[in-house]
Parts: sequence; C-alpha cells; structure tokens
Amino acid sequence: MDMKFLCNYGKLLFTDLYEITMSAVYFYEFKDTWGIFELWVRNLPEKRGYLVFCGLEFAVNYLLNLHFTEEEIEFLKKHPSLSHIGDQFFEYLSGLKFTGNLYAMPEGTVFFENEPVLRIEAPIVEAQIVETALLNFITYNTSVATKASRIKYASQIDGKERKIVEFGARRASDFLSSIYAARASYIAGFDGTSNMLAGKIFKIPTFGTMAHSFVLSFKSEIEAFKKYIKYFPQTAILLIDTYDTIQGAKKVKMAGKDIKAVRIDSGDVISISKEVREILDRDGMEKTGIFVSGDLDEYKIYQFIKNSAPIDGFGVGTKLVTSDDAPYLGSVYKLVELRKGNERKKVAKFSKGKVTYPGAKQILRFEENGKFNHDLVISEDEDVKGGERLLIKIIENGNLVYNLPDLENIRNYVSKQILKLPESVKDIYNPSKYEVKFSERLEKLLALARKEAI
Amino acid sequence: MDMKFLCNYGKLLFTDLYEITMSAVYFYEFKDTWGIFELWVRNLPEKRGYLVFCGLEFAVNYLLNLHFTEEEIEFLKKHPSLSHIGDQFFEYLSGLKFTGNLYAMPEGTVFFENEPVLRIEAPIVEAQIVETALLNFITYNTSVATKASRIKYASQIDGKERKIVEFGARRASDFLSSIYAARASYIAGFDGTSNMLAGKIFKIPTFGTMAHSFVLSFKSEIEAFKKYIKYFPQTAILLIDTYDTIQGAKKVKMAGKDIKAVRIDSGDVISISKEVREILDRDGMEKTGIFVSGDLDEYKIYQFIKNSAPIDGFGVGTKLVTSDDAPYLGSVYKLVELRKGNERKKVAKFSKGKVTYPGAKQILRFEENGKFNHDLVISEDEDVKGGERLLIKIIENGNLVYNLPDLENIRNYVSKQILKLPESVKDIYNPSKYEVKFSERLEKLLALARKEAI
Repeated sequence: MDMKFLCNYGKLLFTDLYEITMSAVYFYEFKDTWGIFELWVRNLPEKRGYLVFCGLEFAVNYLLNLHFTEEEIEFLKKHPSLSHIGDQFFEYLSGLKFTGNLYAMPEGTVFFENEPVLRIEAPIVEAQIVETALLNFITYNTSVATKASRIKYASQIDGKERKIVEFGARRASDFLSSIYAARASYIAGFDGTSNMLAGKIFKIPTFGTMAHSFVLSFKSEIEAFKKYIKYFPQTAILLIDTYDTIQGAKKVKMAGKDIKAVRIDSGDVISISKEVREILDRDGMEKTGIFVSGDLDEYKIYQFIKNSAPIDGFGVGTKLVTSDDAPYLGSVYKLVELRKGNERKKVAKFSKGKVTYPGAKQILRFEENGKFNHDLVISEDEDVKGGERLLIKIIENGNLVYNLPDLENIRNYVSKQILKLPESVKDIYNPSKYEVKFSERLEKLLALARKEAI
Repeated sequence: MDMKFLCNYGKLLFTDLYEITMSAVYFYEFKDTWGIFELWVRNLPEKRGYLVFCGLEFAVNYLLNLHFTEEEIEFLKKHPSLSHIGDQFFEYLSGLKFTGNLYAMPEGTVFFENEPVLRIEAPIVEAQIVETALLNFITYNTSVATKASRIKYASQIDGKERKIVEFGARRASDFLSSIYAARASYIAGFDGTSNMLAGKIFKIPTFGTMAHSFVLSFKSEIEAFKKYIKYFPQTAILLIDTYDTIQGAKKVKMAGKDIKAVRIDSGDVISISKEVREILDRDGMEKTGIFVSGDLDEYKIYQFIKNSAPIDGFGVGTKLVTSDDAPYLGSVYKLVELRKGNERKKVAKFSKGKVTYPGAKQILRFEENGKFNHDLVISEDEDVKGGERLLIKIIENGNLVYNLPDLENIRNYVSKQILKLPESVKDIYNPSKYEVKFSERLEKLLALARKEAI
C-alpha cells in the first residue's frame, strides 16, 4: 500500500457505511426533502472554559470538491450491503456534488458548549453523507487550537511575551494531523513550527534546534557545538543536556559569544534554568536565551513562570498534538429540521443525556465593557435585537460566497477574542462557565417536539 | 488550500527543520559515516502491560519511496535558516534516497518498554532525516493497535466471542488517521470498521447501522424502521434510543420478525440491555442481537460483561482512535552507534531520566510452557543461545528483502501472541510488568560510554 491512493480518492468515500445505506433510503423515499444539520460540541471537557473553532477552511474545501471517483462507485456496487440496492442510486452517487448551503462561525471564533458552529442546509442525501468528514475536520483542529490557546495564555501569564514553537510532528497521528496541528497552534498564537511540510503548505515560520544524536555524533560536546555554529552562526540553539546540563552550559562560551540560545530538554527545569542563566550571565552571554522543551503543556509552563524560571521560549509537541488532558471533544452533527417546498418540520432527539434543540439556529454574542458577557442561542428566524450574529453564510447553492481569510488574519482575530474573554473563563486549572442562554422560543419548540414524538 | 498537495509531496519534507540543519553539518563534516539509530518506547503508560507493534508497512513504504521534489528543494533553498548553506548540499538532497538497512520486529509483535522495535543503519544524513516520519508512523499506529487489543480482550473476558466494529472515523484526527485506526484495530482482532475508505484501501469488512437523524427524518420511529428494512432486510440494525429505548424495543416486532439486531447508544446500558433482551425474547425475536455503542472502551465493556449484560456486539470509536486513557507513547529514535570503515563507536546519552544503552541490539524472547516468560536485550553481535530473535532484516541497501504479510496474517499473528502473554500482563486495570532484562555486556558498554563521556 503506497500513499498514492491519497491522490485518487474522491473525498466522499471518507464516510461511514451507514451514511450511504441511509442515503439510499432517502434517495428512493424522499428525494425533494432538504435536511438541516447542525454541528456542535455537547459538553466541554472539565479543563476547558472555551473552545477555538478551527478547521473551517478544510471543511469548505471538502464541500466544494467532493465527489465519488468511478473506482469508488465500483467498490460501492460490489459491497455486500449495497450490491442489491439498484443502479439508479449509484448513478445518482456518480454525479453527486454539494449543492446546498453552509453557515458557520468564522474560523478562529471562540465558542462554548451546545452552540452550533456550523449548519448545513442541503438535499438530505448530501447533508447526511458529509457528516463523518465534517465532524472529522472540525473536531481535531478545534481540539488542538484550543489546547494551543491555553498554552499561549499560560506562557505570558506574567504579562511578558515568550516564543512558542510547535514541535509535535513525530507524535501526531500522521503527517496530515501534524500539519493540522502546526496550523491550529499558529492560529492560536504560536510563533511557528518545526514541521517543514507545514511550513511549506501554510507558510508558517519554521524553527529548529539540534538533537541529542547530533551531539553524540562528535568526539565531544564542545566539538558538536562548534561545528554547528560554523554552519549556523545566526540561528544556532545549542542542546546542553546530552551528558550533564550544567557542564554543558559552561561549555557554551567556548563555542562562541553570540549564541542565540541554549536548549534544556530534561531535568528539574526551574532550578536548572536559573543555574544556566547564572552561568551564561557570568560568562558575558546575557543575550543568549534559554529555550525549554520536553513534554511541556500549559500546566508546566504556568509553574515555570510562577516560579520565575528565566525561560525565553518553549518547544511544545506531544501534549499539544494529542491534547492529552482532553483527548477528544464530544462533537455531534444532528438533524434539526426538514424542509420540503414550503413545509418545515423542526425535529429533536430525546435520548437520555443527549437532548437536542429543534430547528435552525443563530447565536448572538453580547459584550459589556469590552468583554464578552453572554451568548444567546435563538431560532434562526427569530427577531432579537443586539448582539453579534456569529453564524454567517459561507457556501450558497454549492458556491463559495465568502472570502476565506488567511492565517495571519485568523490569528489576529483569535488574539482579539481571547482578550475579550473574561479572565475566569481562561483559567487553565478551574475555568468558570461562560453563560450560554437558549431563547424562550427554542424552549417552546423543544417542548412541542417532545409532545409530538410521544 | 486543497488536499492536492498530498499527491505532490516527496515524503522527505515531512520532517523537522533541525533534521535538515543537522544533516547539512553531517554532509560537510563526515560524509562516509553511518549512523545506527534505534526506535523504542521509553516507559509504558500506567495502564499498558504490553504494546502491539503497528505501522511497519507504512514505514517501509516511506523508506522505499522517499525523495524531495524539485518544488521542495526550492523551498529549502529559500528558507531563512538554510539559504546560505551552499548548493552542494541541496544537490545532494535532490538525489537523496534511502540506501541503508532496516531491521524490525514483524508488524503485530507484542513488545515492552525499552525494547528497540526497529533499527536503521544508513549514511548518517539518511538515518537522521527520517527520524520524524518513522516516529510518526509507529507511535500512533502502535497506540491504537494496543488499545484495540485491550478492547478485544475485554470483550471476551467470559470466554464468549463478540463482534467489535471500529466506529471512530469522525473523531480521528484526520482521514488518514481514521484509516490507520481501522487497520490497527483490525490487526488487533476487531471484525471490521464503519469507515468506507479503510474498507476500500485495506479490504477490511465494513459494517453500519443507522443514525438518529434517519429516525427523525420519518413521521414516526416505526415508519423509519420499516423503510430501512424495506431496502436492507438482511443487514438492518435498528437504532432504538432516539425517543425512548424501551418503547423503541417494543416497536421492533412491528417492523419485522427477522431483524438482525438493534442498537442502543445511550443510557444505563446494563439494565436497559437486559430489559430490551426480555422484550425481544417475549416477542419471539430470540435471534435478534443487541449491539451497543456510545463512548465505549475496555473498561465499560468489561463491566457490561461482568454484569451479564446480554450484548452481542460493540461499536467502538472515540476512545479507541484517541486512546484516551493513554493518548501518547514515549517513543524515541536515538543514535546508538557510529560506523566509519571498520571503526565502530557505540554511543549513549545520559540526560536525567533518559539514559540509553549504546550499540545496535537484538531482542531474545524466551517461552516457558507455551507462554512468554521474559525477554533479553543483547548487543547485536553478542552470542547468546536460545530464545526467539525478534528483529529481522527488512530492507538491505535500500532494497526490500522481506515479504510484507497481508492483514489477515498479521491479525492471526497478533492473536497467537496475545494467547501466549501471561494473563496478569493483559489485566486492563492493573497489568503486571513483563520482565525485560539487559545483558551484562550491554551494562558494561553503558558504563564504558559513561566513563568516556566524562
């Protein structure tokens, strides 16, 4: 198996079998019906006071380009669960495109539990079959952007800006996740990534240091330092903990006076960084920075800074790309409304602990004194004054009607919003809950739907 | 940004910047030196008694096909950290291929902490630059195969086989991770996946049920059931918890007598499954199975079975594809030896808590009474009798010299090994530690390397 299949796949096959079996029934039973689906996160993980919406660009490109290849249609025709279902359906799938509408929050918008971040309005087969991929695009990207935002916040908890670089390529699930993670963390305020593929694809600045293997390749630590500086005098960051961190720090001056920084990747970072700072200063290298890496996250970084560790930058990888303290989000994509001609039927499910509000919605965000105060979720057709409307039209009848912003713009947008978030919601250990209200009309619609279902 | 870049990328750019800067120094300073690197997992997560080696096929295909595209070389030439480094280096990179050797455990081998699962022997630039990608391929795949193996084990803790299907596509990091996860869990004993792309690429059986949205699309629950059965009489699994699970179960007989199964996705599964079983039996549907889904993992499944919940199959997604109770592995890829002509230098690092044994290694696995008893890690050139040698030659001088087994073979191999693992090591809550010894010679080499480093 080579990765060549990645070039030939038509995107629609990245779906669950049930999306296709259900689509077959929809196709034969009610072709003219539109399904309105919304995507949201049910409950925020305990340590998350907010989420950063990320992945929209991928979802949009997916919707604009989706189709089945001929090879994929052949695969479906031979599938044991589908082979009997009739050629009409497969012919329909062969020509399938996305012809509906997409409403979404702009990428980078801060959001909270039970708030729809996007809405699909489309012929029901189209709306159903994209479920798997849409959830996939939004869930991981949002998870990492959120984690990165927390790390960025912790890294400047004393009001001082520090450099943060994404280092997670090796521990991401695959190369695609790795570039997603680099992009998501850049959006959330990171300064760059070590990942060259992400650098090329997304034009994110790339940074690097050196590995232990490099130091081990030379006769001595000092020789390794000198050789690296010979070739990279401006950008060298010397890794000083291969043998003994303190001894390593003392050798730096022998390698050169203008070293950009040293890196510490192990040990008790708080005390070691202070000792290393003293050594560098004593050796007249006040300008040489200290860069720290090694299973970092927002909690460790917060403790470093609270304990006055003299650190100028962080490399953050594993715990960012796996969002290890909240490895998944309870994201869902649910049918909320059916439309046929002028008829509209708003629907809801009542499974225990998984109740949904019926009908298409809009979110209003209200500010007070320059800070986000609360959100109000309303019915899309409800007339409520004030607040910023978060869901905007992105795709109309299959066509893009929105300018996808570039990464720098998204990054600025995130940064401005984080400033507007109440401090208590940003607390990394015990965030308070931001208020999200649901309109009276939504509550009434829910009661009505519940009655009708019985 | 479209996904088209996936077709045009030369694989080598999926690396960290420092792999390239270090390579430049290696290139100019010691071209004829070979680096020997090993990949292992440092400490097993608390809840893991063993790991299942997975991802080798991807690593092999990567090594056999890696190169830089012209566009990628242009990108490197313009990179602010690299632009001054000299055309000779870029010319070398343009023609770079993997010309070294790969030794590895067969895919699916059970392994433990500090055991090298693969070894690269190659010109040092080649050996260094593949670090990021190799760690990436092995870490996630191994993580998911291991989690899946635990889930499989829990699902038959009473000696009865039950069907398990991988449902995680929507919560995986991206579509590539999703097919990795489907493959890894199939290797570990799952029966199939819902993921159609994985089904096509890897020929894994695909299964599906129906979604709540389907039930909500019809005037009534019973109509939804009937319509689905009309099109899928053989394979229908009816989702009965959209409104009220018990009421849903009672409607099943009205939809047809030969229903394959019902699915429960919410609520107190143990009591509800018992009640549903009674209803189905009372209605003469003894053959209709009960399939359960909803944030399942090995712990929940174990509790279901210990509490005699009458469940015939499981759909497992989110917690599998994120391995949520151990979201990452401490995998490392370290230089252990340098070779130049007949000279060999075995190296080791001594960073606090991160000590490595020097030199190329082999692993011997010893059995007693048909069960794995302990492993002995030795120097590759050490003469020790007995035990099975786990590391075998896969690539020699850049050429494949090994038949990559198909998934069915890997699956059988995993299953046989799991049988040979001591029960206490497989305990999902509190696994005991399998014994891994290091030979006296390795201990001596470590002491020697430590002395030389001082």
